[in-house]
Amino acid sequence: MPYSYEYPRPALSVDCVVFAVDLDLKVLLIERGLEPFLGSWALPGGFVGMRETTDVAALRELEEETGLANVFLEQLYTFSDVERDPRERVVSVAYYALVKPALVTGGTDASQARWFSVNDLPELAFDHSAILGVALERLRAKVRYQPIGFELLPGKFTLGQLQRLYESILGRELDKRNFRRAFLRMSILEELDEMEAGVSHRPSRLYRFHRAAYKRLVKQGFNFEI
Amino acid sequence: MPYSYEYPRPALSVDCVVFAVDLDLKVLLIERGLEPFLGSWALPGGFVGMRETTDVAALRELEEETGLANVFLEQLYTFSDVERDPRERVVSVAYYALVKPALVTGGTDASQARWFSVNDLPELAFDHSAILGVALERLRAKVRYQPIGFELLPGKFTLGQLQRLYESILGRELDKRNFRRAFLRMSILEELDEMEAGVSHRPSRLYRFHRAAYKRLVKQGFNFEI
Repeated sequence: MPYSYEYPRPALSVDCVVFAVDLDLKVLLIERGLEPFLGSWALPGGFVGMRETTDVAALRELEEETGLANVFLEQLYTFSDVERDPRERVVSVAYYALVKPALVTGGTDASQARWFSVNDLPELAFDHSAILGVALERLRAKVRYQPIGFELLPGKFTLGQLQRLYESILGRELDKRNFRRAFLRMSILEELDEMEAGVSHRPSRLYRFHRAAYKRLVKQGFNFEI
Repeated sequence: MPYSYEYPRPALSVDCVVFAVDLDLKVLLIERGLEPFLGSWALPGGFVGMRETTDVAALRELEEETGLANVFLEQLYTFSDVERDPRERVVSVAYYALVKPALVTGGTDASQARWFSVNDLPELAFDHSAILGVALERLRAKVRYQPIGFELLPGKFTLGQLQRLYESILGRELDKRNFRRAFLRMSILEELDEMEAGVSHRPSRLYRFHRAAYKRLVKQGFNFEI
């Protein structure tokens, strides 16, 4: 045991809650290959190195364990319950992100990492279902005061696609008319002279985000009553 | 050095940003009695024990160093820059709170703890001015989506007192008419059949918070355009 200190120290780890939306809201989990919780599913994460910030450690662990790189992780909360790890005292700094659905199939080591619908989760190792719960709450609160969709939708999209994005995150159906009215009131959508193509139903109008207005609203916040 | 581990571990600490409002926004600092930064001012805080959560450690350190007890601390952010402490690697979980002005004079060990106006701060130890900056940003954002004042104002207060509370936190003057209109729109104020007493100017009407409506709005959030 080569590292000695005058006072005892908890170990420090990071955990990553990475959400993606396709038909519903999904979260990225890895299957544990080690005790404790061998064979259980867990959030990607691991111990923080001595020469890296927790931000860097989270990105590194996420890439090592799932192949996902360049994810915009935001710090969520630090979890420090004394018994949260049965081996020893481990305090974990949790991060979260919402990524493009395209990433769902790309780059992950399939033997180890998998997307799960948040509505159909396996039992999770450690306190990871509590961490996931806090992340979900944060994500759902966030879409009420910041616009989302810029990085998640294609460049041109229908209002139906936008509504389905919100519905997947919120986990409930939204009233079409109220949603559209509330969203249009934000003045961040540009209506295009273009309809969607190659659909069997009546084609819907396409929109795109007004980039500058969108970024302004991200900064400034609002209250989206949905 | 009696505590040995297979891998190196950062030390884990907590720091507390405690704000109070009287004429302006103040923050509680302690004068360091130890190196490094001996004689400098710093946020109250210290190392996390092995049998306590970071929440408990923050409350304990705050009380030990300043005498303040039972403060409603919220976790702010975890700071992990590799060089943030010149002695060794220390990761710090920061907390913040906004407390009643009555506590400003009570309970603190005057030789060690003191309130400073956020507009007139000494140079701070470690990365504490960065931590304070994040706390200030969080507090100012928070008053835009949650009501404040319930625990900070007397049971009955004038709209002028309420406005001065917001002005101290935001650090700028607010338009009286806009502020009143925006606040009354929240429907959390009860107009009383009572005027303030013992003032030299024309007495103003007294209000109190509608407790249930206030609590509902704390949960539900809003967007206060001020």
